[in-house]
Amino acid sequence: MSADRAAGVGAGAAVTLGLDLGGTAIKWVALREEIVVASGSAPTPRSGAEAVVEAMAAVAVAAGPLEAVGVGVPGLFDPDGTSHGLHNVPGLKGRYPLGAALAGEVGAPVRLANDARSFTLAELRLGAGKADRHLVGVTLGTGIGGGVAVDGRVVLGRDNRAGELGHQTVDPQGALCGCGNRGCVETFASVPSILAGAARAVLQGVDTSLRAACGGVVSALTPVMVTAAAADGDPFARDVIDRAGVALGIGLANVCNIIAPERIVVGGGFAAALEILRPSLEETLRRRARPVGACPVVAAGLGQHAGAVGAALWTREPLR
Amino acid sequence: MSADRAAGVGAGAAVTLGLDLGGTAIKWVALREEIVVASGSAPTPRSGAEAVVEAMAAVAVAAGPLEAVGVGVPGLFDPDGTSHGLHNVPGLKGRYPLGAALAGEVGAPVRLANDARSFTLAELRLGAGKADRHLVGVTLGTGIGGGVAVDGRVVLGRDNRAGELGHQTVDPQGALCGCGNRGCVETFASVPSILAGAARAVLQGVDTSLRAACGGVVSALTPVMVTAAAADGDPFARDVIDRAGVALGIGLANVCNIIAPERIVVGGGFAAALEILRPSLEETLRRRARPVGACPVVAAGLGQHAGAVGAALWTREPLR
Repeated sequence: MSADRAAGVGAGAAVTLGLDLGGTAIKWVALREEIVVASGSAPTPRSGAEAVVEAMAAVAVAAGPLEAVGVGVPGLFDPDGTSHGLHNVPGLKGRYPLGAALAGEVGAPVRLANDARSFTLAELRLGAGKADRHLVGVTLGTGIGGGVAVDGRVVLGRDNRAGELGHQTVDPQGALCGCGNRGCVETFASVPSILAGAARAVLQGVDTSLRAACGGVVSALTPVMVTAAAADGDPFARDVIDRAGVALGIGLANVCNIIAPERIVVGGGFAAALEILRPSLEETLRRRARPVGACPVVAAGLGQHAGAVGAALWTREPLR
Repeated sequence: MSADRAAGVGAGAAVTLGLDLGGTAIKWVALREEIVVASGSAPTPRSGAEAVVEAMAAVAVAAGPLEAVGVGVPGLFDPDGTSHGLHNVPGLKGRYPLGAALAGEVGAPVRLANDARSFTLAELRLGAGKADRHLVGVTLGTGIGGGVAVDGRVVLGRDNRAGELGHQTVDPQGALCGCGNRGCVETFASVPSILAGAARAVLQGVDTSLRAACGGVVSALTPVMVTAAAADGDPFARDVIDRAGVALGIGLANVCNIIAPERIVVGGGFAAALEILRPSLEETLRRRARPVGACPVVAAGLGQHAGAVGAALWTREPLR
């Protein structure tokens, strides 16, 4: 143990930094042991990969002496820290040595993880799943991310790709998904899919309160307009939400049948939709998770910084 | 280490017995270390639970000195060795203290496991998946069983129920499954589902070679008649097989997206159908396993005794 670590949790002792890299913001936390001692957010630069690395490095420098840095990324990465397929992050769509570039700037070891697997790890260790050994994490947002934990560890699988719950097929003849498949959970339950369903109702001229909500301008529709209209009983908003809940319920029932979790934790930028999705989601889960049986579906315990907390925690997981 | 074990692998040294309890036969192997030193099969008695236990005990006595006995069961069980829901085994549909009853007869520790999870463990340790850390096992037969292995261990999940790959929903409005759900993989790809599809073709009077194959008597249809007719190009047999392959492909693509295995191993009583199912199965897997990517699908390496081998191997796994 280094002198810094032996100094314990006093001011100035080294921290583990967790960064949650998103398309619009870099959320961060500084962890000492399992305590969040600082947290914040910075805008994601739009001028290229180097600028993104510089912005992350600036957060790291401000955090003080570092034991390690974990970065949760919205996409894929290789074990050597090369990111790829971060389609939502300006300048990082292609292959980029993100881990090495950041480590060079901050002088501390850097480990990459997928953002939804980071969320799942945080909820497993410190959040709504901390009493569980078998847990499923789902993030609702622009996409549907996920992670599965078995026997107390988040599953990585071949090439760190396990956990893509949102790309299960629920309608073999369904709409084309960004992944290239048809009828994925994501084509029903992601924010863009829900907005598209609401836009259809407005555009087809039916009697829906969504029209007044957006002033007749479908590009002004927001997820909150749809959930609010559904809560108020608008049948078209309700239909969009229920179709999302059923699709998510089918996907989660499949996961229950495959890994038999003790709990499902829901987070992500659209996590507030859980309660309006819950009736259709839970009815579907109950009917379709057989013979394994359904399990409780709960809201995330760590709030919007769960992904950053999980990214920090990944630096302490054994390499596999 | 006991004196018996120290005596090594010579004749008379204790063996680990693996029993694969099926509706019509009890298959068994005797393992010394990882070598099958004897194997066989006995009919499953139809006169009740006690007779089934006696038949298993008779196999055990014939096998000689026993270190432990593992029993693979076609259904559910509690950690204390109580079986339930063995719908295909005469006398064992309800709750029965199978482990304790057999242990009392044979004087050795008895451990229960699910039959498809036993198959998966055997293929992971000694069969077609022995080079893999992340593996999926599928058994084709009266039902569609399964198991998933992560980081070199078969996943058990809550109440030992993980691995029910055959009860994933692939058609939300599909036929009612024995499990109570609609449109499970099993409603397309199990032997009864394939026979029902063939029977429909014969009964609706279309031009299919299946009619001549069964002499017009649909109850005489066999799985081999359907796979042979499909191989010969009969369009109705081909359609039944392709629908089975697509459904299995969707289920396996979902599993790829969830756990990112290195390989999928196919076994069970209807495993010979893999090659006729392969074109539709693999095309579906390729198109739908995104962004994780497909993996090779291979035939089981251990043959019809894989389940019994896995049942024996379970006795050496840590309890969790």
